[in-house]
Amino acid sequence: MKNIPLILMGCGGVGRQLLQHIVSCRSLHFTQGLCLRVVGVGDSKSLVVTEDLLHEGLNDGFLLELCRVKSVGESLLKLLDFGKCQAFVHPESQGKILEIAFQLGKKTGLVFVDCSASSDTVAVLKQAIDMGCCAVMANKKPLTSTMEDFKKLFIYPRRIRHESTVGAGLPVIASLNRIISSGDPVHQIIGSLSGTLGYVMSEVEDGKPLSQVVRDAKSLGYTEPDPRDDLGGMDVARKALILARILGHQINLDSIQIESLYPKEMGPGVMTVEDFLNRGLLLLDKDIQDRVEKAASNGNVLRYVCVIMGSRCEVGIQELPKNSPLGRLRGSDNVLEIYTRCYSKQPLVIQGAGAGNDTTAAGVLADIVDIQDLFP
Amino acid sequence: MKNIPLILMGCGGVGRQLLQHIVSCRSLHFTQGLCLRVVGVGDSKSLVVTEDLLHEGLNDGFLLELCRVKSVGESLLKLLDFGKCQAFVHPESQGKILEIAFQLGKKTGLVFVDCSASSDTVAVLKQAIDMGCCAVMANKKPLTSTMEDFKKLFIYPRRIRHESTVGAGLPVIASLNRIISSGDPVHQIIGSLSGTLGYVMSEVEDGKPLSQVVRDAKSLGYTEPDPRDDLGGMDVARKALILARILGHQINLDSIQIESLYPKEMGPGVMTVEDFLNRGLLLLDKDIQDRVEKAASNGNVLRYVCVIMGSRCEVGIQELPKNSPLGRLRGSDNVLEIYTRCYSKQPLVIQGAGAGNDTTAAGVLADIVDIQDLFP
Repeated sequence: MKNIPLILMGCGGVGRQLLQHIVSCRSLHFTQGLCLRVVGVGDSKSLVVTEDLLHEGLNDGFLLELCRVKSVGESLLKLLDFGKCQAFVHPESQGKILEIAFQLGKKTGLVFVDCSASSDTVAVLKQAIDMGCCAVMANKKPLTSTMEDFKKLFIYPRRIRHESTVGAGLPVIASLNRIISSGDPVHQIIGSLSGTLGYVMSEVEDGKPLSQVVRDAKSLGYTEPDPRDDLGGMDVARKALILARILGHQINLDSIQIESLYPKEMGPGVMTVEDFLNRGLLLLDKDIQDRVEKAASNGNVLRYVCVIMGSRCEVGIQELPKNSPLGRLRGSDNVLEIYTRCYSKQPLVIQGAGAGNDTTAAGVLADIVDIQDLFP
Repeated sequence: MKNIPLILMGCGGVGRQLLQHIVSCRSLHFTQGLCLRVVGVGDSKSLVVTEDLLHEGLNDGFLLELCRVKSVGESLLKLLDFGKCQAFVHPESQGKILEIAFQLGKKTGLVFVDCSASSDTVAVLKQAIDMGCCAVMANKKPLTSTMEDFKKLFIYPRRIRHESTVGAGLPVIASLNRIISSGDPVHQIIGSLSGTLGYVMSEVEDGKPLSQVVRDAKSLGYTEPDPRDDLGGMDVARKALILARILGHQINLDSIQIESLYPKEMGPGVMTVEDFLNRGLLLLDKDIQDRVEKAASNGNVLRYVCVIMGSRCEVGIQELPKNSPLGRLRGSDNVLEIYTRCYSKQPLVIQGAGAGNDTTAAGVLADIVDIQDLFP
């Protein structure tokens, strides 16, 4: 039986879903000779740790109670009443995490699972990796900070996995890494990596005004609470940066040309969300409609995509053939087209839901299972 | 530097392409701390082995000369003149291979790479795996023989990889294994896994007669020398069987319902290839044309696919919505739709070239690189 100790950082929707997946996959993993032992779970404020680090994980009842406690917005400290654990609060929790990394990292291996959405985890992750730990990440932030941080995280490239940072559970990173290992040169990647923007662009293609489509998307729960967080393109740019860096481009977020779907004058510092939705957006309808019509007159459609080609990496609206995998995209699926020597005329295409806690957590779990070979 | 010794079985197009990829990826793999050391290469008749098994592989000049010799149809024994190697002929070669497996398997690990198209490799593979070796396969035959053989090959599931048995280098198996590891239940797989039949079905959809389309496909080099080898569906059935077995179905090739596109009376034992192409095929035009028209009247198209759902596994023509990833398929790409809990309304789709020596060998090489973590 292979025993893989884990520390989970972040107990938001993805983190909680991951814990539930781990519990419900116990017997499946057992038949595969695998035991995932969650030794600690932390959020931005506190950390709970199993009492017997070397032998026992937090038990399944405890993990499910943890999910319940966090889903109703309570503190991890609440769990001290519930079961055998130690609890630490920030900033002591950081020190404790590194102590565990030191204790387990070299000896048995330890996987740091980052399901937070914070830039603050990068310091801990770098130190843990230095101490022989592995990292599995759904969090894009540490991978999209400086090149120096990125290089430190990838100092042992086999020990870090981050499938769910791009396209949630879609096998994007795994496939790209396979292409790279096989020496097949990547000529171009073009992808629609935001479910929200995918939906928006395919709806405006049908002639609906942008303002209405965005309001619909918001009421369908497709957007962030402030839809400008999607429309600004920063989330897509982070994904593009991760792909570009995997391809070996030593670039930063600020070297990516990002087209925002709203002008600075409608930014969060200037307009309230309500104002933007009810007033600002209306002013953008005409321009998008004109562009849609112009594209249609060329037999094309508009898609909000990332394009990585040579040293070029940009994010924004592109006019694409209606009759291509990206052009045919409808709704909120992600689509990635990868052009290589092997896939030169027709790209390798990966398509499917690219968001959602369930899918994202599934991608994280597959990464964890995948690094088992590194464990004794 | 991680040193991975390999034995290659099969020096057809894929095997030779793999050797060329290995040579041309030397510096790439070197920067990743990886050295692939080809210690032996065999075909159905003979085997050449490096003189110093423990320390040296066959050198790159030798490997390229081997590719040249085999591409002009000469014997591996020809290489005795060329460089430092030992040579063995069948059946001694089999014994020698097992001796190497015994010598290296437990000690340093050894990867058996099966790029042959023969059922004969299964015995050697099973024994090698027993001795601690790994296997990477492009050859479908050993995986589609008895369940008993399959189980023996998968006794250590992490030590066997076979991406290129389905969809060539497309990340089909890797993606499916990730889905399984994450506990996401697979509800249905439906895929067009023959480039030839994909091309044929999309051409007859345009109203061309089957007979003409098959003759065109043959002259474009899309078919086997005897196109009935494609039209019979056996190759697709083998791929379907591999996918079904990965999903845990303990079935054999003869439990798969296979629809052949030609009747028994036109089989290879009854008609010559020329007779089939010039006379037999014409008799099949009307029926396919009727089916295409019937499908079109329902807004559907015909695709030759494998369907795996529950315990059902079948291969043949299905009527599918025109507006689905499979329905939109044109030309010779492979398309796979995977429906799971995470991908329930819209499937996870993987699409791209599913044949060709270059792509197939790239998939094999990615598998080899991927099992490096098992090596000390």
